[in-house]
Amino acid sequence: MTSLGSLPLRDDLRGRSPYGAPVIDVPVRLNVNENAFDVPADVTAALQERIAAISATLNRYPDREFTELRTLLAGYLNSVLHREGGAPDAQALASPSIEPDMIWAANGSNEVLFHILQAYAGPGRSALGFGPSYSMHPLIAQSTGAEWIEVPRGADFSITVDQAVEAVRTHSPDVVFVCTPNNPTGNSTPLDVIEAVYDATDGIVIVDEAYAEFAGPDFRTALNLLPGRPRLIVSRTMSKAFAFAGARLGYAAAAPELVDGLRLVRMPYHLSSLTQAAAEAALAHPDSLLAGVEELSHQRDRMVSGLRGYGFDVVASDANFVLFRGVADPTLLWTRLVEKGILVRDVGIAGSLRVNAGTDGETTAFLAALDEILSTHPDTLGRSPQ
Amino acid sequence: MTSLGSLPLRDDLRGRSPYGAPVIDVPVRLNVNENAFDVPADVTAALQERIAAISATLNRYPDREFTELRTLLAGYLNSVLHREGGAPDAQALASPSIEPDMIWAANGSNEVLFHILQAYAGPGRSALGFGPSYSMHPLIAQSTGAEWIEVPRGADFSITVDQAVEAVRTHSPDVVFVCTPNNPTGNSTPLDVIEAVYDATDGIVIVDEAYAEFAGPDFRTALNLLPGRPRLIVSRTMSKAFAFAGARLGYAAAAPELVDGLRLVRMPYHLSSLTQAAAEAALAHPDSLLAGVEELSHQRDRMVSGLRGYGFDVVASDANFVLFRGVADPTLLWTRLVEKGILVRDVGIAGSLRVNAGTDGETTAFLAALDEILSTHPDTLGRSPQ
Repeated sequence: MTSLGSLPLRDDLRGRSPYGAPVIDVPVRLNVNENAFDVPADVTAALQERIAAISATLNRYPDREFTELRTLLAGYLNSVLHREGGAPDAQALASPSIEPDMIWAANGSNEVLFHILQAYAGPGRSALGFGPSYSMHPLIAQSTGAEWIEVPRGADFSITVDQAVEAVRTHSPDVVFVCTPNNPTGNSTPLDVIEAVYDATDGIVIVDEAYAEFAGPDFRTALNLLPGRPRLIVSRTMSKAFAFAGARLGYAAAAPELVDGLRLVRMPYHLSSLTQAAAEAALAHPDSLLAGVEELSHQRDRMVSGLRGYGFDVVASDANFVLFRGVADPTLLWTRLVEKGILVRDVGIAGSLRVNAGTDGETTAFLAALDEILSTHPDTLGRSPQ
Repeated sequence: MTSLGSLPLRDDLRGRSPYGAPVIDVPVRLNVNENAFDVPADVTAALQERIAAISATLNRYPDREFTELRTLLAGYLNSVLHREGGAPDAQALASPSIEPDMIWAANGSNEVLFHILQAYAGPGRSALGFGPSYSMHPLIAQSTGAEWIEVPRGADFSITVDQAVEAVRTHSPDVVFVCTPNNPTGNSTPLDVIEAVYDATDGIVIVDEAYAEFAGPDFRTALNLLPGRPRLIVSRTMSKAFAFAGARLGYAAAAPELVDGLRLVRMPYHLSSLTQAAAEAALAHPDSLLAGVEELSHQRDRMVSGLRGYGFDVVASDANFVLFRGVADPTLLWTRLVEKGILVRDVGIAGSLRVNAGTDGETTAFLAALDEILSTHPDTLGRSPQ
């Protein structure tokens, strides 16, 4: 019997472990930022109807250009801009809206990001991010052969214009990531920071807005910045607000020429007919799909209040999760919560844990479990980093 | 308006075109080696039932380890070995069958191959293939940053033991591809060549058996060689014999430790719940799915006879397609066939075209169109390379 170590694995992969949160079967899973609500009945009905309509012709390859899906995704993003009050930057230009040829999609936003890094980073190039942030960003960049540069955020996890511009000028990266709302901290980055990053770099700027639908009224999407910025790309996902993580559909909007570059690196027919049909059916019911967003934002706010009431230091969150600091021993608290049937996430930030908003009952169960643990073990609370 | 050329695209991608056969809407499409038959009714019924059962819980991420699917794919491969007469090499060892932990799967066999190259090739490494062969092999290898080495096959497109061993010893590649039955030529490579390649290299040997189910009774799968060969991996697909191209499910079998390496490079949750459910439903009906294989093999044989009868030089084929040589002007013949509503493939081999087996009616239409063209333009026939 041989082992992986005896096989000619790449040196840079030796000793690594596969990415992924621990899978533990407990009643309350608040660890991977899933949407707590089932897919609504009108969406599942539409989905089943669409799948039934295409299932006999699955012998044929899918539409390589996923034309119908791109049109629907563009329509959704235009409705986002419309709700924000009409894309002022866009209106100044001749072509103010998101057109289908500005859309890319793939099997989850990780694959979208991978395609961007394959085309615009890769061996001999570099990508920069502001940490702590989504832990897949460095892994995706490195898996294309690019060097990863991590610049620390401020103590409150913010990014300022000065700090961002200095980082970009110092390191001259080929790709810059800005995750907003940021995973795992939950806070957002204002558009003026993204504009300043764009102006300071000749490279591609990726704004990862996976959690944007959960943001408060002050949040403005970087989609507003697309006109006149051909090196900017804004990625989103159907996994979170749309309650569609199992369908694996990430997407992005950018200038058509940036999208053209992604066609050179994607595998042919990378989006199955099933994925296209399911996403199309779902996008025909956006109001239904997004119905849980308001309730989840409310549950997130309950978590913020509850955690603050217990004495934790909680980062203000525009996402469907909360990072709370001031945990004396995160591994111990994580274990005690698992013992009570609740799974949260230790994201490796000292003295903190992350928990995502659940249903009303799940949020109540989480807060009650924490209350019990704190009563029995008041030393659960530690000192927050300042 | 900017163009892709003005964006910071990687230098090695500049000037490239996206991969893909021309998409032309004609009645008879025999150009991308699809299965000509619709998915059978019992399979579509099972598929719809499975999708209905999971659609409400698509808010949750898929099973990262696709455990049920691996078990079913292992079962299918064991049935392949069983039909071949019981895997003599395997029976000599303690663990003669394909176990679920020997299975990998991804969105199409292209992605399976990509994962293998990411883990075991990539920047600073090389991959070797025997051309002409599947045109995605070099593109996949290069897209991981690996160097591509192409060694020519013999005039009859065969690979001999001596030639293969010399090529591997000369170039010391990190990965060797053997495509059998070979796309686009249709001929197979005997197992003794694969054994010799394996013994001559310290690298990974990929046997791409995408078309194996269409092979004649003399074909033996390289699955027979897996026991005791931890650097060997055999890839297959549900796109061809299984009539499931639209579902995008490729898979492979290898030693568990080789498969472990693929976990380090795949995106988390790369296989959607929809894909897993659809493939599982289909694999519960293998006899139905494979019902078209015999008929397609018969239609392929009709094409071989017909083409030979017209004077073309036809490569004996173990696949669902035929390469015919002796075409004076492939572009001209391709165009004349399109004018008659028939789409075949110019794969870039001098004096040849590739056509895949269709339904009885499609095969008849192809042969009739060719007959008409030859009557009107006897100069369609050229001289075959010797």
